[in-house]
Amino acid sequence: MAGNTLGKIFRVTTWGESHGPAVGAVIDGCPPLLRLAPADIDMVLARRRPGVQTHATARREPDRVEILSGVFEGLTTGTPISLIIYNRDVRSQDYEELKEVYRPGHGDFTYQAKYGIRDHRGGGRASARETAARVAAGAVAQKILEAQNISVIAFTLEFGGVRAHRLEEETIWDNPFACPDPDAVPAMAARVKEVQAQGDSVGGIVEVQVRGCPPGLGEPVFDKLDAALAHALMSVGAIKGVEIGSGFAAARLLGSEHNDPIGPDGFASNQAGGILAGISNGDDIVLRAAVKPIPSISQEQDTIDVQGQARRLRVKGRHDVSAIPRIVPVLEAMVRLTLADFLLRQRTIA
Amino acid sequence: MAGNTLGKIFRVTTWGESHGPAVGAVIDGCPPLLRLAPADIDMVLARRRPGVQTHATARREPDRVEILSGVFEGLTTGTPISLIIYNRDVRSQDYEELKEVYRPGHGDFTYQAKYGIRDHRGGGRASARETAARVAAGAVAQKILEAQNISVIAFTLEFGGVRAHRLEEETIWDNPFACPDPDAVPAMAARVKEVQAQGDSVGGIVEVQVRGCPPGLGEPVFDKLDAALAHALMSVGAIKGVEIGSGFAAARLLGSEHNDPIGPDGFASNQAGGILAGISNGDDIVLRAAVKPIPSISQEQDTIDVQGQARRLRVKGRHDVSAIPRIVPVLEAMVRLTLADFLLRQRTIA
Amino acid sequence: MAGNTLGKIFRVTTWGESHGPAVGAVIDGCPPLLRLAPADIDMVLARRRPGVQTHATARREPDRVEILSGVFEGLTTGTPISLIIYNRDVRSQDYEELKEVYRPGHGDFTYQAKYGIRDHRGGGRASARETAARVAAGAVAQKILEAQNISVIAFTLEFGGVRAHRLEEETIWDNPFACPDPDAVPAMAARVKEVQAQGDSVGGIVEVQVRGCPPGLGEPVFDKLDAALAHALMSVGAIKGVEIGSGFAAARLLGSEHNDPIGPDGFASNQAGGILAGISNGDDIVLRAAVKPIPSISQEQDTIDVQGQARRLRVKGRHDVSAIPRIVPVLEAMVRLTLADFLLRQRTIA
Amino acid sequence: MAGNTLGKIFRVTTWGESHGPAVGAVIDGCPPLLRLAPADIDMVLARRRPGVQTHATARREPDRVEILSGVFEGLTTGTPISLIIYNRDVRSQDYEELKEVYRPGHGDFTYQAKYGIRDHRGGGRASARETAARVAAGAVAQKILEAQNISVIAFTLEFGGVRAHRLEEETIWDNPFACPDPDAVPAMAARVKEVQAQGDSVGGIVEVQVRGCPPGLGEPVFDKLDAALAHALMSVGAIKGVEIGSGFAAARLLGSEHNDPIGPDGFASNQAGGILAGISNGDDIVLRAAVKPIPSISQEQDTIDVQGQARRLRVKGRHDVSAIPRIVPVLEAMVRLTLADFLLRQRTIA
Repeated sequence: MAGNTLGKIFRVTTWGESHGPAVGAVIDGCPPLLRLAPADIDMVLARRRPGVQTHATARREPDRVEILSGVFEGLTTGTPISLIIYNRDVRSQDYEELKEVYRPGHGDFTYQAKYGIRDHRGGGRASARETAARVAAGAVAQKILEAQNISVIAFTLEFGGVRAHRLEEETIWDNPFACPDPDAVPAMAARVKEVQAQGDSVGGIVEVQVRGCPPGLGEPVFDKLDAALAHALMSVGAIKGVEIGSGFAAARLLGSEHNDPIGPDGFASNQAGGILAGISNGDDIVLRAAVKPIPSISQEQDTIDVQGQARRLRVKGRHDVSAIPRIVPVLEAMVRLTLADFLLRQRTIA
Repeated sequence: MAGNTLGKIFRVTTWGESHGPAVGAVIDGCPPLLRLAPADIDMVLARRRPGVQTHATARREPDRVEILSGVFEGLTTGTPISLIIYNRDVRSQDYEELKEVYRPGHGDFTYQAKYGIRDHRGGGRASARETAARVAAGAVAQKILEAQNISVIAFTLEFGGVRAHRLEEETIWDNPFACPDPDAVPAMAARVKEVQAQGDSVGGIVEVQVRGCPPGLGEPVFDKLDAALAHALMSVGAIKGVEIGSGFAAARLLGSEHNDPIGPDGFASNQAGGILAGISNGDDIVLRAAVKPIPSISQEQDTIDVQGQARRLRVKGRHDVSAIPRIVPVLEAMVRLTLADFLLRQRTIA
Repeated sequence: MAGNTLGKIFRVTTWGESHGPAVGAVIDGCPPLLRLAPADIDMVLARRRPGVQTHATARREPDRVEILSGVFEGLTTGTPISLIIYNRDVRSQDYEELKEVYRPGHGDFTYQAKYGIRDHRGGGRASARETAARVAAGAVAQKILEAQNISVIAFTLEFGGVRAHRLEEETIWDNPFACPDPDAVPAMAARVKEVQAQGDSVGGIVEVQVRGCPPGLGEPVFDKLDAALAHALMSVGAIKGVEIGSGFAAARLLGSEHNDPIGPDGFASNQAGGILAGISNGDDIVLRAAVKPIPSISQEQDTIDVQGQARRLRVKGRHDVSAIPRIVPVLEAMVRLTLADFLLRQRTIA
Repeated sequence: MAGNTLGKIFRVTTWGESHGPAVGAVIDGCPPLLRLAPADIDMVLARRRPGVQTHATARREPDRVEILSGVFEGLTTGTPISLIIYNRDVRSQDYEELKEVYRPGHGDFTYQAKYGIRDHRGGGRASARETAARVAAGAVAQKILEAQNISVIAFTLEFGGVRAHRLEEETIWDNPFACPDPDAVPAMAARVKEVQAQGDSVGGIVEVQVRGCPPGLGEPVFDKLDAALAHALMSVGAIKGVEIGSGFAAARLLGSEHNDPIGPDGFASNQAGGILAGISNGDDIVLRAAVKPIPSISQEQDTIDVQGQARRLRVKGRHDVSAIPRIVPVLEAMVRLTLADFLLRQRTIA
């Protein structure tokens, strides 16, 4: 049973391969009467594109979404919203060798094991290209959140071992790392140069914060809000870990340190990360996701071919040095999609 | 829309409150012709009970499951399996005060915010008592895994800051911490005494390992196996973070360090934690979950009552000093439930 | 993938076999703060019991429901409502012969073909006994409908070829046929005697009407309200056909006869049966279901045993002469369950 | 919660409005390694087009599907199959008046009541145009059925009161009524002329037969195969009733007449219509659906405008005189989609 749909009420199904004609999303369950235009989506897609920074992929994708259904005279109608983003500038020949060889760290081997067939060109369905459809859908979810004054921001907390120590929200997109601490940017830039020179790649940590989330979202017991958010973030290819609030640090705290005292004006601290017993408590939701270094590197690696024979592989073509910053708007989108769904789920109760 | 069901094919719905007459689970989608007896379940439930250790709750629950349907002459029939575990030794009077006051770190406030009503006795639906139904269902899932020679083990990697450094599987249940390193047990025991004397509580880290999982399980793109496992583990009350394989350490590794080289005999390392692009790769699956210190502590805390007035609260009654070790079989069960579901999902493809 | 759950928001999962210890239902997604007591359910269950009429089964089932969870101090809490009804007066020995032989018209053969195993006692999961759990759940759904002033009634339109020609609602349960036309009752009673004398059985047609349903319920395109209602009614064992409004008669009408003219005060006729393009139009919803004669008859029949050998079978034990009237509250419950679900679904839009 | 998805394992989501740029379907859960080309789909779509007959809509839609994903080198890959069919020859100006007036028998009023907005052009989402996406998806389902030697055929049993009395399968598409009895065709043609002259429309009955279905498909208790098939057929706009096997005639039969005797070589009759207790019994599945006369007629009708004021309306533009024969491949597709899903569902059991 396939898994290309996310959400229970606000349901997003994505489709498309890296080197097929297009990728897209169908959103079923979007409420009617929300104002929606392609530009609302393109604006968010733009953040997913490689920017001026040298380390991002050179594949130019001036992504433009087309809304094929579900919007009439600028308003959503309650019927499915079909979004399509054409794939342009696709060079399949770069991938001919990969027909026969599994790239380490990629899904080549596992897709073959699962399906007995795979579209090897550019990672096929496993390509990060698929996340364009998620980001597009996330821009629609954003319309629901906006109407409730909920905002979601994401940024790079750590990049290649370099940590951001301040959160200056308005500077996040002023640098090529989605780093909210201008003082950390030079060290990050230096790290990129170093790693690029070695033909290697780096990872990092992305933080997502939600402000204005009302208390009461989240569904006991299995569909806790934090469980659904962890699911959403871990469904992004490069993510190896997710934590909320205190996260792994909780393992070394005492109960008296970890419990957030409650006062008439709210919680005195936020170890909970905005969620208690799986239900939002009205405080900011704070999530962190560990991003692995992208597996496509220029160094030669040990692997096998489809016959199981040992091979040495040097992945050709253009590679980013990191999934950061392109993954930042993707994680932001995943949180938006999840919150929009839980907002609508809560309507069935209250 | 409620969230008391887990799984798509092997579907488990749990029900019940801490101080109601019983808790239970209905499993829909269990294949027929599996041998199943109550003793198979009771045996696993026994691990969830407090043992001889002084730090676990004194509430004695000689949990015995009854199988009300779906099994005929010792074999599953393919129809829903209804499991019931009666609640015994329930002392609701301990909880009278909590009708009016929200306990810090618990779901009291958020349940009230969500539903406008809550069963305050013992945490009601948010109680850890609910996990007995999960463990029972996990024992049924285990039957499916066994038939495929898949095994799942869980243990305490870290407790109150004390780390286990070795994995001696057969010793895990010989000590009151589900600790696989006998040498770490004394320090853990000392930590308990220290914390108990302060009326406080501690958390830790639990690791779950899966052996024998075939390659090919997991559903792109949203229902990646790691996303589903993260969801399952985070749906357990005390969990604040989940990681797979390299986990958060991935953020500081280079691609050349993180990529697992592939050879004719398998992967040379396991940074992936057994999952690539959301699909199992045949290697061991390795997960870690951060357990927060349990919020019920004997120290007085700041909180509010249901009218929003400031209150000082000292939680009465019997408390464990940690969710560990009781949470260990719960996390094990969550992984079993998830794997059983994905094994059946894969049958629709191959 | 199993199918023991109905509904998307108001979700009912039933479990239990005819000769197991109990049957039951778990309702997930019932809104909080509805007043609910066992007596509310027992009252509806009583209509499913055989009454004074001689033709109904002699098995006495003074069904009493127990509410095991989800209700606190008389109010629903939003958590799963677990209902259990114990099986009493179960005589499995009547069914020994059926271990080896498939009864014509029953699910014996198909369950065996599907699962490779079956609980042969009294039809096991395929028994009409399972509908007790549906009726119990329907009584909970009724609470949601009541709050919206929606009422659902069901009655026998035709029994063994005898038609009711008037609808006197208050007389429906005054006779053993759930017949709303007192003048038709004597002919129905005569029909029973005739058929019983032959050791045979009869069917009929049940009509369900919904009043007070607001316009706007129903989900294009696949989950049209009429599609969901047809699904719900056809999921009851004895039903061979379902129609709405004009039904099969529509096939011989002209468009000018079939279109319901719309006026400022509503629709001038109701060929639509209260649903247009899958969405309720505010008019009464009118459904009819064809009930087959029950397959357990005293006459000897041709069949095969589990080895595929020809056999002659005379089904022993007590049989009703018809599924009517016991099926009437079951169909009523199915409509209630469906409407409650669609009312909650509509909340996610408006 | 929206309803634009059908199926649990083989899941089809359709999108698109009559006068938007396109309609389409995303199929998630199609097994890999099935041979699939656009021509396979176009061939079936061609049957949904108006043919030479004068009574079908003049709107020419040489529908051509594009496969945007999920197929690689002519084989399905197990990833979502995205199908798109562009809308051509769209004349929205025909529908300007309908912005303000509700057409009797159409969904105009109910869509407005549900969503507070509607795309009035050509029925928008409620248009029969949407069924092109279903037919396209059905052609993919057909690939799964073919591999199991299951065939589905549909034909017109009755048209405007004229009945077909023979089934000559190879003649069905030789006439403009999808009528399997050549002798009935002239009377059907005469009926069309008569009704067209009056500016009116007619309905009929379509029968669907499935051959080669193995025993064991169908999921007790709510997802019985007949329940799912009824759901699927009733989800097509014009359908007012569905019956299986004996159908409504069952209401007047005796048990001894209705029970299909079982012999070593199978069932001696097929009142069951191929399904017993919701599970296929290996015999032919026989379904009939009542098709209402299409509501767009040239006669003037009473209705109201969006302000609720009385209006007289004569629907302009081109209308078919009947949903038959275009609905025939649609119903065929619905049965195919349902069977493909249940075939895959059964894999999780056996």
